[in-house]
Amino acid sequence: MISRAHGISVSSRPIEMVERKGKGHPDTICDRAAEEASISLSKYYLDKYGRIFHHNLDKCVLIGGQARARFGGGEVLEPMYLMIVGRATTKVDKGGSTDVVPIGSIILSATKSWLRKEFRFLDVDSHVVVDYRVKPGSVDLVHVFDSSSGVPLANDTSLGVAFAPYTETERLVMETERLLNSPDFKARRPEVGEDVKVMGLRENGSIHLTVAAAMVSKLINDRDQYASVVKDATEEILRMADRITHDDVEVNFNAADDYKRDRYYLTVTGLSAENGDDGQVGRGNRVGGLITPMRPMSLEAAAGKNPINHVGKIYNIAAQEIVNRLTSEVSGVDEAYCYMLSKIGHPIDEPQAVQVEYYGDASEDRVRSYTTSLIEEELSRLPRIWEDILQRKYELF
Amino acid sequence: MISRAHGISVSSRPIEMVERKGKGHPDTICDRAAEEASISLSKYYLDKYGRIFHHNLDKCVLIGGQARARFGGGEVLEPMYLMIVGRATTKVDKGGSTDVVPIGSIILSATKSWLRKEFRFLDVDSHVVVDYRVKPGSVDLVHVFDSSSGVPLANDTSLGVAFAPYTETERLVMETERLLNSPDFKARRPEVGEDVKVMGLRENGSIHLTVAAAMVSKLINDRDQYASVVKDATEEILRMADRITHDDVEVNFNAADDYKRDRYYLTVTGLSAENGDDGQVGRGNRVGGLITPMRPMSLEAAAGKNPINHVGKIYNIAAQEIVNRLTSEVSGVDEAYCYMLSKIGHPIDEPQAVQVEYYGDASEDRVRSYTTSLIEEELSRLPRIWEDILQRKYELF
Amino acid sequence: MISRAHGISVSSRPIEMVERKGKGHPDTICDRAAEEASISLSKYYLDKYGRIFHHNLDKCVLIGGQARARFGGGEVLEPMYLMIVGRATTKVDKGGSTDVVPIGSIILSATKSWLRKEFRFLDVDSHVVVDYRVKPGSVDLVHVFDSSSGVPLANDTSLGVAFAPYTETERLVMETERLLNSPDFKARRPEVGEDVKVMGLRENGSIHLTVAAAMVSKLINDRDQYASVVKDATEEILRMADRITHDDVEVNFNAADDYKRDRYYLTVTGLSAENGDDGQVGRGNRVGGLITPMRPMSLEAAAGKNPINHVGKIYNIAAQEIVNRLTSEVSGVDEAYCYMLSKIGHPIDEPQAVQVEYYGDASEDRVRSYTTSLIEEELSRLPRIWEDILQRKYELF
Amino acid sequence: MISRAHGISVSSRPIEMVERKGKGHPDTICDRAAEEASISLSKYYLDKYGRIFHHNLDKCVLIGGQARARFGGGEVLEPMYLMIVGRATTKVDKGGSTDVVPIGSIILSATKSWLRKEFRFLDVDSHVVVDYRVKPGSVDLVHVFDSSSGVPLANDTSLGVAFAPYTETERLVMETERLLNSPDFKARRPEVGEDVKVMGLRENGSIHLTVAAAMVSKLINDRDQYASVVKDATEEILRMADRITHDDVEVNFNAADDYKRDRYYLTVTGLSAENGDDGQVGRGNRVGGLITPMRPMSLEAAAGKNPINHVGKIYNIAAQEIVNRLTSEVSGVDEAYCYMLSKIGHPIDEPQAVQVEYYGDASEDRVRSYTTSLIEEELSRLPRIWEDILQRKYELF
Repeated sequence: MISRAHGISVSSRPIEMVERKGKGHPDTICDRAAEEASISLSKYYLDKYGRIFHHNLDKCVLIGGQARARFGGGEVLEPMYLMIVGRATTKVDKGGSTDVVPIGSIILSATKSWLRKEFRFLDVDSHVVVDYRVKPGSVDLVHVFDSSSGVPLANDTSLGVAFAPYTETERLVMETERLLNSPDFKARRPEVGEDVKVMGLRENGSIHLTVAAAMVSKLINDRDQYASVVKDATEEILRMADRITHDDVEVNFNAADDYKRDRYYLTVTGLSAENGDDGQVGRGNRVGGLITPMRPMSLEAAAGKNPINHVGKIYNIAAQEIVNRLTSEVSGVDEAYCYMLSKIGHPIDEPQAVQVEYYGDASEDRVRSYTTSLIEEELSRLPRIWEDILQRKYELF
Repeated sequence: MISRAHGISVSSRPIEMVERKGKGHPDTICDRAAEEASISLSKYYLDKYGRIFHHNLDKCVLIGGQARARFGGGEVLEPMYLMIVGRATTKVDKGGSTDVVPIGSIILSATKSWLRKEFRFLDVDSHVVVDYRVKPGSVDLVHVFDSSSGVPLANDTSLGVAFAPYTETERLVMETERLLNSPDFKARRPEVGEDVKVMGLRENGSIHLTVAAAMVSKLINDRDQYASVVKDATEEILRMADRITHDDVEVNFNAADDYKRDRYYLTVTGLSAENGDDGQVGRGNRVGGLITPMRPMSLEAAAGKNPINHVGKIYNIAAQEIVNRLTSEVSGVDEAYCYMLSKIGHPIDEPQAVQVEYYGDASEDRVRSYTTSLIEEELSRLPRIWEDILQRKYELF
Repeated sequence: MISRAHGISVSSRPIEMVERKGKGHPDTICDRAAEEASISLSKYYLDKYGRIFHHNLDKCVLIGGQARARFGGGEVLEPMYLMIVGRATTKVDKGGSTDVVPIGSIILSATKSWLRKEFRFLDVDSHVVVDYRVKPGSVDLVHVFDSSSGVPLANDTSLGVAFAPYTETERLVMETERLLNSPDFKARRPEVGEDVKVMGLRENGSIHLTVAAAMVSKLINDRDQYASVVKDATEEILRMADRITHDDVEVNFNAADDYKRDRYYLTVTGLSAENGDDGQVGRGNRVGGLITPMRPMSLEAAAGKNPINHVGKIYNIAAQEIVNRLTSEVSGVDEAYCYMLSKIGHPIDEPQAVQVEYYGDASEDRVRSYTTSLIEEELSRLPRIWEDILQRKYELF
Repeated sequence: MISRAHGISVSSRPIEMVERKGKGHPDTICDRAAEEASISLSKYYLDKYGRIFHHNLDKCVLIGGQARARFGGGEVLEPMYLMIVGRATTKVDKGGSTDVVPIGSIILSATKSWLRKEFRFLDVDSHVVVDYRVKPGSVDLVHVFDSSSGVPLANDTSLGVAFAPYTETERLVMETERLLNSPDFKARRPEVGEDVKVMGLRENGSIHLTVAAAMVSKLINDRDQYASVVKDATEEILRMADRITHDDVEVNFNAADDYKRDRYYLTVTGLSAENGDDGQVGRGNRVGGLITPMRPMSLEAAAGKNPINHVGKIYNIAAQEIVNRLTSEVSGVDEAYCYMLSKIGHPIDEPQAVQVEYYGDASEDRVRSYTTSLIEEELSRLPRIWEDILQRKYELF
């Protein structure tokens, strides 16, 4: 069902609130761990059997460690503990003989490998214990998945939600984190760690960005250097903001600092998880990369779900593709929302309902006819969407 | 900021999607575990020290077990594993001597106690391993919390979101789960387990309810009895629905069943977690008890957070109170939304922003003045809101 | 091979050292946990399949908790953690269908049940987390075990060792622990906990007993009461000693106490494991119930091993039976030692070597012929020895 | 007390049984993990504070993984899990400020470092999860340890036991494992893994060696190559044996193999722990490197205990030094035994009892006077014995 939305679009509303948890945030680490585990497992299945088997690794817990950071140094006292949880196809019956999937080695290798690549100051050997608990899937779901000769069957009754485009505030929040975690910025300002969280509030025509960034203690000798890093980072954010919006932008960087009381956001590893912050899958960014509580959102965690028939993952991606294309390809569509509801046990390209709403002055007839073919097209792509997921083409968190 | 909403309210939109994860769903079990741990810890603090200390237990993971259910019996083969994660004040310096809080005993006792009470067929001794990992909080947050002589200071920059009232579809989803888990129904139909999940879709003027309910295998002897339980439950839901809506209601009970292939949703304990389904905190119902992806939602998990200054918890509750009262106390306000944004380190009764939007023909002036005092009143209650939280007066998940 | 020993028997030597770790000692708790798990699993196999399947649960670790005991009260702050480790037959192929053994429920139930029975002041719900990690056995051992149509085949190359009778010092050490943990004594003196460790040293004709007994803090109000319990216990031990030996006996009860510095051996639960003492299987008493470093000893842990073909268990028992009978049935045999070596993959009643040595003036011929039939008889009993093991007829630790 | 032993020495007895668990055996891995953790922690203490603080890491559990080895390849399916357990001084109060010891990083780094060095085919990243649980020590022991201004006080009532020299059988068992794990042999025969277990039985004048060595599957293409490796290894052992003994020596290499049924001792990593074999501290070799059930033995695990005042460790070493020197320095002393008993809370150089027995025709007077000074000398070295322990000068397991 496709209809023009009533009311005003988010960017026209008087207030807007948006959040992004950066790549070093405990929740994002969990999302990433779950997704990378799923990708490497999927690749193993593909390489060896030519198809991806059922799995669902969409749970993970990161238990914060204990650390003492101080200007010029510091130590991790107790490592973090990262546990990946779920189920997977671990036995492959080949008629006569049975293969066993080296699930443990796959997950541990994959996890340590991306941890090493992403976090400059995390010593994977001594700062984190990586563990996992994965079981064979429940019989029924395995059945749903395996019985599909043609199009996979939806593993659940589940909803995908998406909207496009981002407002200026949303882009600002997104780009602030991307800036601080970009290779260029890290080269200039290595002192800023990977754990960056950005909260944006637009109100009365001005945008407030609250940025919390874990600073790397051994690279900062004292309060003055700390202050100068904060100043530089703030200025870079403001410069970047100039290219995105004409609104007034105010940046509050590490708002909980209190120099008089010697309170700084210092970490040994650039990660708040080193000292007590815990994380889980699905508690951070939505598909697309933001948390947007004033927008419709899916609660499904895309990360870690199998890319074949887990509608909680692929419907969120498909809905996103639909609104992205609709808003960019049809003039007069300023903003669009898409909702897709699956039907458990039915082919994934036959959803129970698809709903698209749009803002803008394009005619309903035109939008309806365009969107109808768009949906058809995207649904027909669903059985191969795993290819792009394995290439990490979508921003899943 | 208070304004009339543009557009049409949810109940007037052509489509609506709503979900509720019942009390036995793995995610709800985690929410409950986190919240009960927080409540019992808070009570310990109160009893012994007259105030509640900092803690945050808003992470928890339930790792599904392994079970074999069959008509007339079945067994749990490997227990579930429930781990409560977070940090808490474990040392209380009394000037001279130091008390240590028996955090382990408190959490284990509390958890086993409510598990025993809620789940009729769960043998807490042998079907579940309860564990925990709790660390002392990070210094800065402890400071934020402890330094407050008067009103507690917000521990984070965080957003509360709420709306009221529920639409008919939302009420239907809510009441369906409540019905199936009510003592009366359990007396009549003990075969229906506690793990109930309800998904509602309103489209073209009719409402489809997809209900997944774990059935208790040892109470059901065969397919016929199973079918008769399903039939009875469906009829009870339809009868209940009659009292709520005039729309057509269709109930799809245990949609993945396939009698021909002998596939039923059978469990030993009435919980899907017995056989592989995992759970986490904050992945299920929002404050109020529903998942409403077409509505604005907070991603914050209220469960497990301390009730004193954790704005991710108390702002969601406060926002809910405001819209509940606004819609029930002011005629001409048909639907209302509230957003509250905290400012880290500032008193919790001084939010960074509060935004209320409403639908209805009440005059903006009247609503604005009424809401302004309403907000003031609710903010002034915040420093004592923990009292009601400890009484479990709010539906937090 | 049977021969008269050269030299003098232990009781004639100038010095003797013996130890017993009581039933509440962390190592003994682990031994017991392993053995009870094996017994309940064996019974399950027997009940359901008429025979005992392969398993080996002879590893277990008890990680001490944290507690604060004080006169008149105290608290367990962090629970102990008890993990049972090993492998077992978890799948039973019945040709066509496959049974799965509810290994988790069996182990957790059994463990909690005996913990509740044995330790008066341990709250099993909140003072200890019981967990397990059990895997399917390695293929080869399973084969060795399963292929036996008749007599089981030895699962390993392993040695059983035994001696008899106990010297006075050994009996004293044994009886001291038994006394302190007897129901009668507990009725008179409930203040003495279950964690009792006794070390005996005979030197220059007198015997020193060093007794460490965890005292139950909530039953003792102050130093005076503590001292009086120590005094009573000491006196009871001395009275008991009078019935066993004419040597001088000196008892040093809780030798690390230092009343002046307010140091007492106080515990909340009667167990030292509540506050940091860890335990493992096989680190405590040998088959027979003592640690006798001046005697030959097997390092094999009998506890937790399967009672069918695990020679590390049954050869130690058989050797003990042989020396017990030899010394009691043949006059002129004052002391005897037996060594039995298995041959992996060979029937358990065909050991690689059996060696018996004795002290005493009985003629070698007579002893040789008697012992030869004794060995034969005991070997022939081996295939049914599991019956007595399941009845807990042997002192395994 | 020093006396001539009555009876005949072990090498003159008709039968002898000896065992050695090689460096890759699960129990030895645990011993090593515990000891290396203690050494690196001790070095940290020394570096930073000039002295070694209390710790006891003498528990550890290795939970076997799951693997599928096959000629020419194979995979680890589930990693092993190695957990180091104990307590340690984690807080150092410096009057005013408090240091926290990075216990987690120290243990994890040390463990992974030696694992990488010792086991050629173990991928530390993906074949093993290394974890730990270490708590602060109990108050009393910390006191005993810390209060010592001069000589440390014994932390326990505990017994050290030693004998010398090794018999030919003992040397054979020892050297067989050393040969198979020597760099030279590994260069010639890399197919033989690190997990080697040797059992020696001397009977009727001939010595049977039962050798179980995990073979590295990917280096062996088929049964013929396997057989040829077994043949070569057997021959090398026999050649080595020729240099040690004139007795007949028979070697049974991988006795559980059954070529007809395609049963071989194949492993991916050269370690049996990869597929289900579990291990613990203190279940393997005694100080000196052997298990000698026909000799007196201490049950104390030396590995992981602190080298300052943990008498279960240092008394075993001291006793070994005494007998080594006595048998090598005094002609006419063919074999000697030493027993040392500590007294809890007393200086470590003031044992409760020391007992030495010897075989040989040296005069008692001479031995007595020599041994008396020997004991004195060794006791006086005890307060510095930690230096040699940290240099790994003693064979502790």
